Order: sequence, then C-alpha cells, then structure tokens
Amino acid sequence: LSSEKPHPLEEVFQPKSIAIVGASTSEPAIGWVARLLNFGYPGHLYPVNPRAAEISGLKAYPTVRDIPGPVDYAIFNIPARLAPQIMEDCVAKGVKVVHIYTAGFSEMGKEEGKKLEVQVAAIAKDGGVRVIGPNCMGLYYPAAGLTFNPTFSKEPGTVSFVSQTGAGAVRFVYLVNDRGIHFSKVISYGNAIDLDAPDFLEYLAGDVETEIIACYIEGVRDGRRFLEAIKKCLMTKPVIVLKAGLTESGAGAAASHTASLTGSASVWDAFFKQTGAIPANTLEEIADVILALLRMPCPKGRRVGIVGRGGGIGVIATDTCERAGLKVPPFLPETRRQLEEIVPEAGASVRNPVESARGISDAADFYDKGLKSVDADPQIDFILTHLAVDIYGGRQPDLQQQVVKAAEVLASTAQTLTKPIAAVLYAGEHLETIAAVLEARERLLKAGIPVYPTIEAAAKAISKLIEYHESAKRSKPAD
Amino acid sequence: LSSEKPHPLEEVFQPKSIAIVGASTSEPAIGWVARLLNFGYPGHLYPVNPRAAEISGLKAYPTVRDIPGPVDYAIFNIPARLAPQIMEDCVAKGVKVVHIYTAGFSEMGKEEGKKLEVQVAAIAKDGGVRVIGPNCMGLYYPAAGLTFNPTFSKEPGTVSFVSQTGAGAVRFVYLVNDRGIHFSKVISYGNAIDLDAPDFLEYLAGDVETEIIACYIEGVRDGRRFLEAIKKCLMTKPVIVLKAGLTESGAGAAASHTASLTGSASVWDAFFKQTGAIPANTLEEIADVILALLRMPCPKGRRVGIVGRGGGIGVIATDTCERAGLKVPPFLPETRRQLEEIVPEAGASVRNPVESARGISDAADFYDKGLKSVDADPQIDFILTHLAVDIYGGRQPDLQQQVVKAAEVLASTAQTLTKPIAAVLYAGEHLETIAAVLEARERLLKAGIPVYPTIEAAAKAISKLIEYHESAKRSKPAD
Repeated sequence: LSSEKPHPLEEVFQPKSIAIVGASTSEPAIGWVARLLNFGYPGHLYPVNPRAAEISGLKAYPTVRDIPGPVDYAIFNIPARLAPQIMEDCVAKGVKVVHIYTAGFSEMGKEEGKKLEVQVAAIAKDGGVRVIGPNCMGLYYPAAGLTFNPTFSKEPGTVSFVSQTGAGAVRFVYLVNDRGIHFSKVISYGNAIDLDAPDFLEYLAGDVETEIIACYIEGVRDGRRFLEAIKKCLMTKPVIVLKAGLTESGAGAAASHTASLTGSASVWDAFFKQTGAIPANTLEEIADVILALLRMPCPKGRRVGIVGRGGGIGVIATDTCERAGLKVPPFLPETRRQLEEIVPEAGASVRNPVESARGISDAADFYDKGLKSVDADPQIDFILTHLAVDIYGGRQPDLQQQVVKAAEVLASTAQTLTKPIAAVLYAGEHLETIAAVLEARERLLKAGIPVYPTIEAAAKAISKLIEYHESAKRSKPAD
Repeated sequence: LSSEKPHPLEEVFQPKSIAIVGASTSEPAIGWVARLLNFGYPGHLYPVNPRAAEISGLKAYPTVRDIPGPVDYAIFNIPARLAPQIMEDCVAKGVKVVHIYTAGFSEMGKEEGKKLEVQVAAIAKDGGVRVIGPNCMGLYYPAAGLTFNPTFSKEPGTVSFVSQTGAGAVRFVYLVNDRGIHFSKVISYGNAIDLDAPDFLEYLAGDVETEIIACYIEGVRDGRRFLEAIKKCLMTKPVIVLKAGLTESGAGAAASHTASLTGSASVWDAFFKQTGAIPANTLEEIADVILALLRMPCPKGRRVGIVGRGGGIGVIATDTCERAGLKVPPFLPETRRQLEEIVPEAGASVRNPVESARGISDAADFYDKGLKSVDADPQIDFILTHLAVDIYGGRQPDLQQQVVKAAEVLASTAQTLTKPIAAVLYAGEHLETIAAVLEARERLLKAGIPVYPTIEAAAKAISKLIEYHESAKRSKPAD
C-alpha cells in the first residue's frame, strides 16, 4: 500500500532551512532562533529582522527575500497586520511551508482579523505556500530537531499529537513525558487556514515513526474528510480523540478560541461509534490511555483482580472499576484458599479485592507470594494493584525506602506473571509521601508497568484500551 | 426542640474511664494504651492483660472484673473467640460501652464467625452493654482525647464521619485534614451488631459540635430508620453519603467486607432524591464537598467565571464545568472591554474563560487587576481560577516564590470580592512544582479559599454545594 512518491507533507516535517521572521532582539535567549539552535536543529537557520545584524550568533536579514540560500520553512513571529506583506515575501522567495505563530486573526471574533486571515490565506494559496496556523505553536518533532518549547525532551518516541490547541499541546507534552513516554510529532495547527487536522492525520496514518495518534480538535471544516482520515489511521494504529466544545458552554468557548463550529454531541457520538476512535474528555485522560496502550498487552477480557488495601477502600475500588466498565468477579475457591494462607490477618478479604497488606512492607511481601495465585485464577483477565502510600503519609521514618522496595518487588514479580498488570500509587498531599511515590513510580514505569494516580484513572484507561481492541477486532474479522 | 435529658449515646462519646482488654505487651509503644495516653485522653485508663503487671507505665489487670474503679468503656483487642467470655466480664463489671476492635466475625462469611457474633451480641444485650463493632476502629474524637490512630491531629473541628469502613476512615481523616479541615467525631462502627449508622446519625443530628455529617455505608438493616435519621440530620446540617456496593461487583465486595446487604441502585437513587443527602462516589469526593461547604458561601446560581490559562485548556475547562452541572456564559460586553485592557496579548480570550496570563507572574497581575471586573459581571455567580503550575514544571528558577506570590495576591484580592471564589492548582509530577503548589495551597486554604487539584474535582464539588442549598431551600419554602 505504501507508495514510492514522498508524501506532500514530507516538506513540512523535513525542512532543510528555516527562516525566523520577527526573530526576537529583546529576548534572543528565549526566542525561536535560540530555541531551535539549542534543540539541535541540524539545518540552516536564518533570523529575519530589519533592526538587527545578528541574533544568537547568526547573521540576521532584513527580509526573507534577502536570505542567500533556499528557504524551506518560515516561522512568523510578527504582528498579525504584517502577515500579508511577509507572506508575499515568502512567495517571492519560494518558501514551501509557513508556520504563522502569530495570533490576532479570525479567533478574535472581529472583522479586521477575519479579513486579514482571508487575505493571507489567498496569498499563500496563489503562491503555492503551505500554511500551519495562524494562532498556533507549530511543530515539535524531536527526531528532526524541531520544537516550539525550549524545555521539551529531545528524546524521540512513537506518539504523535494533532492539536488545535497550543497551550494544551505544551501541557500535553509534559503530561505524556511525565509518564515516561516520548513523541514522534506534535502539531499545533491553530486556525488551520490551509493545513488542517485531516492533512496531518493522513500523513501520520502512513508515518512509520508513529504508533499511536492523539488528536485535540474543536471543529472540523470538512467532516467527511476528517472521518475518512481517522478511519485510515485506525486501520493500522489507535487514535484517541478529545473533541472539545461538546457542551453548550464549551462550544462558545471554542468559537472564541479557534473560530470553530463545533458540531453537535450526537454527531460526535455517531462518529466515535462508527470509527472506533477512543474518546477522551481531558488531556490527562488521553495521556492515561496512551500509557495503557503502550505498556499493557490487551487483557483478554474486562475481569480485574484487585490487590491492595481492603475494607471500604476495596469496596470503593470495586465500584469504581465497575463504573468504568470493568468487572470484579470473586476468585475461585482454590485461589481464595491459597490467598488465605498468605493473608493471615482476620478481617482481610480474599474474595477479590484481596487485601494485600496493612503496611507497605506487607504489600511487598504479598506481591512476592500472592500475585502468582491471583494471576493463575481463570476468573481474572488482568491485575490492578493499589498502594495507599498516603495513609502512611510522612509518618514512617523509612517510608521512601519501603515504598521503593515494594515497587521493586512488584516490578520483578510482574516479569513472572502471565496476565497484564497495572499499578495505582496514592500519593496524598505530603511532600514525603509524594517524593516516595514519584521514586517508586519511576521504577515501575521503567519496568514497563503503567502507573496511575487513582483507581478511577486506571480503570477508565484500561477500559478504553479493551474497548479499542474489541472494536479493532470487530472491524477486522477476517484476520 | 432540644431536650434536657442527656442523649443515651452521651456515654459513648464521654467515657470517664476506659479499659483496654488485650493491651499489647509486644508493641506497647504503638498499642491502644499508649495511643490514648499520648493523645491526651483525660480519664482513667486500665490496661487489661493477664500476662502483664504494667503497660505503658499503667498498672495492668488480669481481667476487667479486677479493675478497682468503675469502667465506662472497654476496647477489645483480643482474638475473636475470647469475645464472649470478656463480654461476660464487662456485663459483670457494669461497663456501659464496648468497642470490639477485633475482626473475625460474620464478615468472614463462615458459620463459626457468624455464631460467635450472635453470641456476643446476645450477652451484651442481655447485660445492657452497648456495642460498637466488631471489626472496626471505633472513635476519633479529638475534643475528648479519643483516637484510634496515633498520628491523627489533636485539633478539633466541626465535621463528623459515620463509617462502616475502618481503613477508609483512616484515609478519610487524612484527606480532610490535608484540606485544612478538622473533625468533631469519627465513628468506625464495622459490623454493627448493636449500635448502627442510624444511632450515630440521630445523635449527630442534635450534636452542637457537628456542622457537617459525612457517612460511608455499605448496607443498612432498617432502611426506614436510616432514612428518618438522615432526614433529621438534614433539617439542620448537610449530610454527604457514600453508598458503597452500588455496582454488582461492589455489592459482592461489600458482602465480604461487612456482611452487608447493599440494596439496589434504584432504591438508593430514590433515597438521595427524597432526602436531599449529597451523594459521593469516593472518599476524595466527600472531602472535596466538605471543603466547598465550609469555605464557600453558596453561589446564587450555577454560572461560573473561569480565570486561567486559555486556549484549548480553557475550552476543556468549560466543557468540564458544564459536564459537572455548571454553566459558563459569556461575560457582558462591558466586562470584556475592561478585560481586553488588562489582557493585552493577541489571541487571549476575554469571553469566559478569560485568559489571565501565560506566565505565573502575569497570573498574579491579573488577580490584582482583572478579578474585580469578573466579580462585577452580573452574568456570573462565582469565580473559579486555575493555575497550570505544571506547565512551568521545574523549569523556572524562582517558581516557588512566584507561585506563592500569586496565591497571596489571589488571597488578598478575594477579600475584596462580592462573589464566592475557588481555586485550582495543577501540580504536575515534578517535586519542584508540587512543593510550590503545596505551599501556595496552604496559603489559600488559610485565607479561606477552597483549593482543588483539578477543575473536574472543583466543578463537581461546587455543583454539589449548589445542589444541596437548592434542595434545602425547596424543603423549607416557608423560611
């Protein structure tokens, strides 16, 4: 199915030279030029600013036209009103792609901004220049040395994000990186006067560097095309979609943000049913699903064995799992008999949830001895452990050591299990317990075990993982 | 309506002397005797243990019968099988209340435990002894020097918790304390062979030390009595109820935990509609609602003005608020004009949400200049600020200072506003940002501003606060 001809969007992601129009002279150290230089962009960088001779050690040019070599890509960091003139310059220079970082166009809800946007779009179209934006952050593509934020990780990964939000994209990168996961490409495309979500999605569908696609959208111009692009992606990889502006108030906010017509909730319901795209309501939810998709083999079913603090905490955990679409069936009698030998305390449940422990060292002990019994129970498709570190909050002298030890035992035991496993670590609000949890979390993530801050977050993410695989199986019955 | 006669449960909460039966000799430092001594229990404490002469510096007695003075209250920390004999001792001694901490009764799901429980209950009933438990933590009542956990705060407050879970009660105390709120009475009553939720609720309904009642229940024996007790409480104070075991899996887990018959979801739906009790699904949700009830005057309506990072983050915040039952209407044109002067950045929304700032110092600036305009808008009933500290995650040298400064400006500006306000601080997963957020949070909580970790948590809690007041108003139309 793959064609020999390069995809028309290759030039978006592989620019050999970039002009920064409106390169900052007041704060060059945090400007676009320094950002790309420090991030290791390997191509030619041309600062453009009529009032500077040099920026961040590079010769500056008064206009794009004055740049000696060819320019593949230009970033506009200029007042909106100057955009038409500079777009003319780019056309004259033969620039292939322009990223208009600048805001102040149609999203302002005023005639002036709308007119300006139409004008810039027309100049670009007539001149054969592709446009990302305006009102957006552009590209973060660590493998190519491209970034819109100086603090982002340089480590490349396999997740791509197509985003109609810029601030949200920044936050999303942190959320995902904090889960130990890295990015192939992040595209913040804003008002989309030319390149729109379907363009990027179609590209990512065939992108071998992308294993998972996430998408934040407020509105789409061509619903049919968007639907087809999502379907094409879903043929080979999971797609998570956060459709913002689905509520009445949210639709108003989206109109003000990117001038989007958001569409009705029922249309989008049908979209999710028809495509099998994974729906999410917050950026955290997307990041949580990605963690499950990348770190958990898909469970064979929805039946979870819950291991952790029991009593009411266990009952709440059970209700929470079922509300998220999971099942918590009782273990087989044989499993319970085995667990009763390991969990000697009176009052501790072995039914499912099984009460692993009252203290953290007991939890480690249970992971070592009891997880295999839970794993072997045919009533169970996967395991969810939860450790209420917050209950021991800053009140135990060797807390961090004990929590990390429990994580290490869990990580090594997980290697020996046959079923998928995920962990919840409750951190609480004390710096000591939080520090212990962050440390334990890192060990578990490194060992390939997904870690969630709450049972609710874990149950929702895993339920979506299962739903995705069920849907993918239904749409490919012949495989 | 208050009677002169003391409530029959006074003797539960005001014991002048306590016997600890089965006082620990192996770990006296963390046993019940040391726990109560260190917590400042002012009455007589009698360790009972036939194998010790002295425990934690107090003379120990072989049996309850051997104690010289009168004993109001006894705590059983003994194997379940010894409970009948010791209950006989308590009857003989004239003990008024026994708290059976011990587990291993009907909750084990075995004939032996059930029989033992019936036997102990009969002895107590015949002998006129009131029983808390078995299989429970008993009382935490800081004003009376009673606690079941050595690490709990000694500071008394006005929240009471009636709980069928012990581990959950420990966690709940931390959750609420972490929000800067303290307790009047916490009662973990377990299997409830005598004193049950309705007994405690009836007492708390008339308890002047209790302003808010929370309740975790798995099942009730006498549904009518429970309903009436909740109604009686609701006549004078809010009641939040976490009904656990409402899902099929959860009902099974609850049966195994406290041998409760949980009742159908539709029955409990009707219960919440009929009473006006505030429903919650997790302990965190209860704590969040309590924070709103205690720290926010009730907004006049559901219309929220959102102040924080804009763009897609603002659109998601808007959707999240509406999903929780709130409304995010556009500000009046006059308000927008005022906000436009304060928020000069192109692309920043002033519609609602208003984009306060791109950086943390800008947020402080906006709180100072812009909150008054939002507050004055008649379209808005209350304000929700959110600060994405996680976006600046450990990447800014003076982060903590800046975040704390923003909190201080918010706290002092809030004094000048006419409408209720709540704040969301996103902490992220880096110790630096978390430390900054914990510090800022404490300042805000001390200033009486409720702080939530996510917009979702804030929106849900405030929506429940409004619902409670609406329901209370409906049931008292004549006031």
